[in-house]
Amino acid sequence: MNDTTDTPASVTVTVIGLGLMGRALAGAFLKAGHPTTVWNRTTSRADQLVADGARLAPTVGDALTAGSVVVLCVTDYQVVHTLLGAHDVDLDAATVVNLTSGSSAQARDTARWVERHGAHYLDGAIMAIPPAIGTAEAVILLSGPQAESEAHRSALDALGTVAYLGADPGLASLYDVAGLAMMWSVLNAWLQGTAMLRTAGVDAATYAPFAQQIATVVATWLPGYAEQIDSGVFPATVSALETDARAMTHLIEESEAVGVNTALPTLIKTMADRSIAAGHGGEQYPVLIEEFRKPRND
Amino acid sequence: MNDTTDTPASVTVTVIGLGLMGRALAGAFLKAGHPTTVWNRTTSRADQLVADGARLAPTVGDALTAGSVVVLCVTDYQVVHTLLGAHDVDLDAATVVNLTSGSSAQARDTARWVERHGAHYLDGAIMAIPPAIGTAEAVILLSGPQAESEAHRSALDALGTVAYLGADPGLASLYDVAGLAMMWSVLNAWLQGTAMLRTAGVDAATYAPFAQQIATVVATWLPGYAEQIDSGVFPATVSALETDARAMTHLIEESEAVGVNTALPTLIKTMADRSIAAGHGGEQYPVLIEEFRKPRND
Ligand SMILES: NC(=O)c1ccc[n+]([C@@H]2O[C@H](COP(=O)([O-])OP(=O)(O)OC[C@H]3O[C@@H](n4cnc5c(N)ncnc54)[C@H](OP(=O)(O)O)[C@@H]3O)[C@@H](O)[C@H]2O)c1
Ligand SMILES: NC(=O)c1ccc[n+]([C@@H]2O[C@H](COP(=O)([O-])OP(=O)(O)OC[C@H]3O[C@@H](n4cnc5c(N)ncnc54)[C@H](OP(=O)(O)O)[C@@H]3O)[C@@H](O)[C@H]2O)c1
Repeated sequence: MNDTTDTPASVTVTVIGLGLMGRALAGAFLKAGHPTTVWNRTTSRADQLVADGARLAPTVGDALTAGSVVVLCVTDYQVVHTLLGAHDVDLDAATVVNLTSGSSAQARDTARWVERHGAHYLDGAIMAIPPAIGTAEAVILLSGPQAESEAHRSALDALGTVAYLGADPGLASLYDVAGLAMMWSVLNAWLQGTAMLRTAGVDAATYAPFAQQIATVVATWLPGYAEQIDSGVFPATVSALETDARAMTHLIEESEAVGVNTALPTLIKTMADRSIAAGHGGEQYPVLIEEFRKPRND
Repeated sequence: MNDTTDTPASVTVTVIGLGLMGRALAGAFLKAGHPTTVWNRTTSRADQLVADGARLAPTVGDALTAGSVVVLCVTDYQVVHTLLGAHDVDLDAATVVNLTSGSSAQARDTARWVERHGAHYLDGAIMAIPPAIGTAEAVILLSGPQAESEAHRSALDALGTVAYLGADPGLASLYDVAGLAMMWSVLNAWLQGTAMLRTAGVDAATYAPFAQQIATVVATWLPGYAEQIDSGVFPATVSALETDARAMTHLIEESEAVGVNTALPTLIKTMADRSIAAGHGGEQYPVLIEEFRKPRND
């Protein structure tokens, strides 16, 4: 049933997969007052949730038809397909919200499979750890048919801050890994700087606010730089790539001189050098998009 | 003369080196009302500044003794040494503020040389482009004796936002390249994500605010993570490195699948894998500092 006319808290939901993350999701639905059905391969993992008011479905087939929103959160898409495919269940009118981590291609394939079985599909990615679920800090990326996202938004809002990204079900996975690449890149750059500064006796706590400030300021440039990418012209209004490349050499030499790892500085320069070799030395940094778009060829 | 008792605007300053940056520096001093002496190898570059009220020193030796603050801004430290060393000038009582880009070792060497010649030395790095000089946006990193920094602060404030980093004259250079590493890392991670999202038809402008948000949030974690580094213990309170590494595999696979460059994702995973191989898979991300501290050994 797709009873979106009910008051938010009465929407029935199902959570399939009660690992660390699934239990947090089911707990947040219960806390928000949603009648919640749960299923897990290892039944005992449902005990606390049942004590808190959840209904334990006897079979995954039962679970798949028990709610207007059916959230899947298992190890990977192989498990998703095992659970969906092994049961000749009537998915009609249910909306499957798959929060299992996977690739954009897996999301699109699964969307087609679910839609062929007459149900609706939203793909999601969770940018949070289990204890953050149910708070605004937990970002839930969602992609797939906009109407489905809107119909079930009030229920899904119980999980955290839901960000709807677009109709392509692959978008949640793409934004997820893109966001993680940013996370690790900020952390790695900070570690590089911290390692360098420690050779001069500066502790990590002293350097961190500086790194935070730079990351925050540079992040504000991205929307403006994005306009260069979308327009395909890269005038060197701030500085030319060649000028950046000279400073990159300083970064590498300084890293070598103080005896820290040079892998990150070298990667930075390698990408810029490729773009300069392709004739873009007089253009601005975002022209590097041309190199990032190409498969690695070294 | 070290007449720090004068009102700020009457402090006499000298700028040696009138390239793109030196002209901007001299212009900002003039605009703030400081009597400004300038010198440049190619004299004609001083024309506009002289028209605006600067005094052109006949020789670099004259320039070096003309102000209580002598700012150097030339191509590199080799030029600095040529200019300082070729002239048997009495540097006594002057404070040389060297804003030329270079390494921490060059800064420390130059500090020793200048101090042996009886003068004071501050080393700086300019995190700005010439048009920003004279505005709060222009960050001037400064390191060397704190008393010198304080004595000349009011004059140097004319150039932008001055950040004093500590007594070691090498600090300005180290913070400078560390900050640049952060800048390029944020930009590269954004380009990686932009390249991935474009394969799904998402334009750069649509993706940029998401990337900005992630970078800004992750930056707020740095002071907390710094505590782990300074204490040397890395409990996995958020997630274990092993868990991160699995998601890094997703990032690499997704990059390959959509046909974009995998160099950055591969570097991210390589650093984590080294730390896991060293036995840190159950610890939290900042434990990677151990890898960043080591010279590259592959
Ligand atoms: N934990 C996090 O911090 C986090 C953050 C973001 C995203 N995620 C994603 O959320 C998903 C779940 O993560 P998790 O941390 O909850 O993992 P987990 O604790 O390892 O739980 C895995 C779940 O998958 C089930 N499962 C595995 N193989 C199965 C099979 N063959 N048949 C049926 N069920 C099977 C497990 O059932 P049993 O209990 O019977 O083993 C369990 O419910 C993953 O895709 C993960 O990447 C997790
Ligand atoms: N421009 C920026 O955006 C920027 C940003 C941050 C930091 N910086 C740093 O600021 C410094 C200057 O940069 P810039 O942009 O002003 O460079 P620039 O426009 O190329 O100017 C170089 C200056 O060095 C002088 N010079 C070079 N070789 C010399 C020699 N053998 N003897 C005497 N003088 C010599 C030049 O004199 P002539 O005029 O006679 O050639 C000129 O004054 C560099 O260390 C740069 O890294 C620049």
